[in-house]
Parts: sequence; C-alpha cells; structure tokens
Amino acid sequence: MTGQPHAPGGPVVALDVMSGEAGVAEAVAAADIAAERYPRLSFLLHGREPDIAAQLLRWPRLAGRARIIHSDDIVVMTDKPAHALRRARTTSMGMAIDAVKRGDAHAAVSAGNTGALMAMALFGLRTMPGIDRPALAALLPTMKSESVMLDLGANTDCDATNLVQFAVMGAAFARTVLGLERPRVGLLNIGEEELKGTGEIRKAAATLRAAALPMEFVGFVEGDKIGTGDIDVVVTDGFTGNVALKTAEGTSRLVTGLLGNAFRSSIWGKLGYFIARGALQSLRAHLDPNAHNGAVFLGLNGLVVKSHGGANARGLANAIGVAHDLIIDDVSRRISADLAEIVMARDNQPEPNAA
Amino acid sequence: MTGQPHAPGGPVVALDVMSGEAGVAEAVAAADIAAERYPRLSFLLHGREPDIAAQLLRWPRLAGRARIIHSDDIVVMTDKPAHALRRARTTSMGMAIDAVKRGDAHAAVSAGNTGALMAMALFGLRTMPGIDRPALAALLPTMKSESVMLDLGANTDCDATNLVQFAVMGAAFARTVLGLERPRVGLLNIGEEELKGTGEIRKAAATLRAAALPMEFVGFVEGDKIGTGDIDVVVTDGFTGNVALKTAEGTSRLVTGLLGNAFRSSIWGKLGYFIARGALQSLRAHLDPNAHNGAVFLGLNGLVVKSHGGANARGLANAIGVAHDLIIDDVSRRISADLAEIVMARDNQPEPNAA
Repeated sequence: MTGQPHAPGGPVVALDVMSGEAGVAEAVAAADIAAERYPRLSFLLHGREPDIAAQLLRWPRLAGRARIIHSDDIVVMTDKPAHALRRARTTSMGMAIDAVKRGDAHAAVSAGNTGALMAMALFGLRTMPGIDRPALAALLPTMKSESVMLDLGANTDCDATNLVQFAVMGAAFARTVLGLERPRVGLLNIGEEELKGTGEIRKAAATLRAAALPMEFVGFVEGDKIGTGDIDVVVTDGFTGNVALKTAEGTSRLVTGLLGNAFRSSIWGKLGYFIARGALQSLRAHLDPNAHNGAVFLGLNGLVVKSHGGANARGLANAIGVAHDLIIDDVSRRISADLAEIVMARDNQPEPNAA
Repeated sequence: MTGQPHAPGGPVVALDVMSGEAGVAEAVAAADIAAERYPRLSFLLHGREPDIAAQLLRWPRLAGRARIIHSDDIVVMTDKPAHALRRARTTSMGMAIDAVKRGDAHAAVSAGNTGALMAMALFGLRTMPGIDRPALAALLPTMKSESVMLDLGANTDCDATNLVQFAVMGAAFARTVLGLERPRVGLLNIGEEELKGTGEIRKAAATLRAAALPMEFVGFVEGDKIGTGDIDVVVTDGFTGNVALKTAEGTSRLVTGLLGNAFRSSIWGKLGYFIARGALQSLRAHLDPNAHNGAVFLGLNGLVVKSHGGANARGLANAIGVAHDLIIDDVSRRISADLAEIVMARDNQPEPNAA
C-alpha cells in the first residue's frame, strides 16, 4: 500500500479502477470529479499501483484523499463468476469488496463483470439478516424524474418472499436516493387486476397490502407504467427486470436513432435540427445512460455499486455519487428497520432468518 | 342473416364489429379500407344488424362483399373470460369465431377484450395437432423494418416444449407476413452465453439448435436486441413478452413525450420543429401503433387476429390485412409442416400429441 492516508471520519469508497472498459485514466478522473462534488469523500483505489500513481499525478486534489491498494490480477468481462471468485484475494474487484468487509471502506464501486461482482459481493459480504437474496437496483428516467427498478438480474427465479424483500429494499433505496417520504411501490405484472400473474406475485401483493411499511403499495403495474413517473419503485424478478431494463434501453436507442434518421432525411430536417439543437440537448441529457449510472446490490452486509461497463469518467462519477448518498443516508440501517416491520406485521410464524 | 352473398372463392374474414372501443362506424369503415386494398376479400360482419346496415349504406363497395350476421350481445372490456365464454353463442365475438370453426370464414378479427377472445378462440377452435398452447404474436417496429415477438401474454408460464413450438409458429408467421425465407429466430434471455437463464430456456435452445427447420436459430438475445432489426423472431414466455411489449410501448411514449417537451421548451425548439415537421412525420408513422396493428393467436385450428382495442379505422384495416395475408399464405399449413420436422428431428421418444 502506498499514497496518502484518507480524510478521517468521512465516507470512504473502495474503487475498482481496473475492471471497466474505459480504462484506468477515466476511472481515476471519475474519482476526481466525485472528490470535487463531495469534499469529505475519500478513496481506496484498487488496481495496478504504477498505473494509478501515474494518473494521480494529474489530479492533486484527489491524490490528497486517495490511497492506492495494489493488485496485479484483473477480472475481465469474459470471466465466469466461479473463476473470478477463486481470485477474490488477488483481483482489484475482490480486494475492493474485501475493503468493505474489513471496514476500511463504506462502499465498493466497480464497472466490471456483473456476474463476477455479484458472486464476490455475495460470498464476501453475505446477505443481511432477514434477506434471503440480494437484488440489483437502479434508477431509470421517467416523464417526471426518475424511478427505481429491481431486481435487474441478480436472481433468475424469485418467490413471493423474495419479491416482498425487494419491495422493502427498493422503497428504502427510493427514500434515500430520490428523497421520498412514502415512495409509491408497484409489482410488475401483465395486468392490474388482482387475479393476474403468477401465484407468487399475487402472494407478494397480499403480504405488501397487509404490512404497515413506509411506502404506498399501489398493487400491480404493467410495463408501460415504468416510464410515466407515477410509480417510484417497480419490483420484479431478476429475469423480467433485466429484460424490461434492456428493452427500455433498446427502445430508447431505437426511437432516438429513428429521430436522427428523420433529421438527416432532408434539408428541412437538417435545418430544423440545427435550429432546435439547444432544446434537444435536454432530451439527450435526460436519456443519457451515464446520467442514470450506478446500480446497487441491495441486501448485503455492505454496499456494492455496479457502474455500466462502458461508462465514461462522468458516468462512473455518478455511480460513485450513488454510493456516497447511500453511505450518508445509511440505507442499510433503513432496510433493516423496514424488514423488522414486515416480520412484526406477519402472522406469528417462526422466522428462522430474522435477527 | 341479411345482406349480400360474399364473393365465391376469395378469402373471407369474420369481423367482430361491436367489441372495439372505436365503435361500429369505425369498424365498418375499416372493412371498406381493407375491401379496397384486397379486391377478392369478403366479410361476415358480426353485430347488431340495424347498426351495421345503417353504416353499410355509406360504403357501397363493401356492401356488395359483406354479409351481416346479427347478434344482440356484446363482450365488454371488463367481462371476465369465463363470463364471456358462457356467451360464446350469443355475442358478436363468439359468433365470429364460430364462423371460422364452421368454415364460413377463414379468419376472425376482433378489437375486443383479449382474455375473452383468447378463451373463446381456444375453446371454439382447439389447438393444432402438435401444439400444446396457442401464443399471441405481433409485429414490432425495428431500426430496419419489423420483427415478430411471441408470446405476448397468452401463457404466463411456459416450458421448453412451449417455447420450441412458439419458435416454430413465429418463424412460420415471419415467413408469411414479413416474406422472409429463413427468419433469424432468438430466444429472449438475460445474457447471450449458453449457461444464462432458466433450465427451460436452455432446453428449448438445445432442441432448436438440433432441429433442421426453415429458420436460422441465433441462440439467446437480450431485450436491447428487440428493436435493432438483427432478429426477425423474438421468442419468450407470455409473462416476459407482455412486459417487454408494454415496456417498449411505454419507453417509446416516454422518448417522444420528452421530445415534444424539448421542442416546446423554447422559441428555437418550436421553430426547429416547424421546419423539420415533414421529416419528423416519417418517425411518427414508423412508431404509430396503428401501423403495426394485428396480433395473431397462433397454433389454433383457425386464424384469430386481435386488434388493439383503441385502433381507429386505419389501424383495424391493418389488422384485417394481417388476417388476409395469413389466409393467402396458408400459415396454418406452414406451422403444421414445420412441427412435423421438429417431431422427426427429435429422439425417438413417444410423442402423444403428434398427429
């Protein structure tokens, strides 16, 4: 270990500098952007010491608030989770998670291989008492502002208990990151009527209706409600959530791609675009994946934030910002408190997982 | 029964005139648009005789090729499928399907309640030999042209056999409606690697890889590939397909809504829109749900086409056009032939459903 000691008392992020597609220079630049935004934030920078040290020379502000933790090995995008897991102690990704486990950092941030990060985070940090499985949550753009969706791919199959736990975690996340007192929570389904969907979804809805939680449970919502802004938290299993997220991203690219073609299709289109280009930049900013970057593994004994693999410095800085907010607002404690409510509201069944 | 006899020999569509949201006048106007497009097409118009007869006075071309089949009862959007099913013999929807069953029409078209239509179609027409469950298929816009997606909500849970059958039916649909010799078929999944997804999806992929079918099976595809135009047929279970379809519709509305806001946000935006408005109309046309109207229940002993409930005359005419093309290209025979291939290619297991 080399470099400066971090600021005492403030939040500390363990940043995996090596595993993203954008490279070390962008990752270190991202840390400096975040360091400017959050004056009390300091960093552990995990990766190849000479590469990171060379970049830190460019960012004196960051250098004063960062410590380099050297590792030679790197998890690549094609690594199978099991193969990565065996290298938890030698890779920048594994060591960033280990820093959270040891209490040296409050959150780990990585732009690397999602499956490997999930496996390492679950194995290294374990689930919180009362949570059976972690979920991947992220913010999506809506007509009004942003909404939370989870699970985005951590769990292919989910039962009613998983979905209820996801709702609790998603609501706590929305209260923290979106600053909402009582987030409106919906279960993703293929119709709004009570009899629609699988038995597990209907069971989850019944539990959420009965429990007294700091959320407004609105019942079932369909896919076309994800972007309207009328729902703050969209809860679903990891298979459906991953498909919905990627379908939304693909459709957004489709429509903006067709829009670009339309503007280029004639001289009037080109002229109209030229005149309206200032106004159109707000659209681009609102839909920019970098602006919504930072998916969170919720339900672990420690915070892990996943950045888009291809995020640029500004995008990765936003993911670090998500980690910062979750640390400051103590989202893990909120989830624990809400889970205790659920357990109390439930029938007096033995609850082996409750702490 | 009143009115003119239909043209002998040509395709006949049984149109449920009553169950859509747009009303009788729009439905009859839709039939006239289709009658102009397809000179050999004739109609059975199911619904209240006086209402339909009054509208037919406006469309002499259609009147010469349409027969009114009177029914008093109407399936409404809030009817439960079981309640509608008991009125199969007295409603315009049920009688349109019955006309297909009796061989009086080649396809039924309705803009009514999807669950009721599905129940009536399944009960009235039964599944084809070799098909366990019907699937709802539709065309979606892509960057290049259109693609087929199924199942869009007919079946909440699907096993590997269902998915394989959907792939066969979807490919036959794409060969017919999109005119493709060897459609590229993908299974919707949360990653492209062979080990991703549920066991049923992996089993379906193994069967499709092994069978010699008139399609190019490209393996797993993620949600962001639905709109690129690189896949012609996207196969998934009815829960995921319904969520993906509605997420795509919602995202398309989100982006075009934000675009409208951007144009309205300043005088430069308004001026740019005014100048580019001609070019932007091609975008609107490509994304217009009415242009892609007409979802098909595939796998039944008879063709049933579902129009959007809120389709206008032009939209409903497009759904009638889908029915027309499926009749002309004999899509049911194609599906049967492809299913026979699958059965032959399979291991010599007993196959109780094969004809």
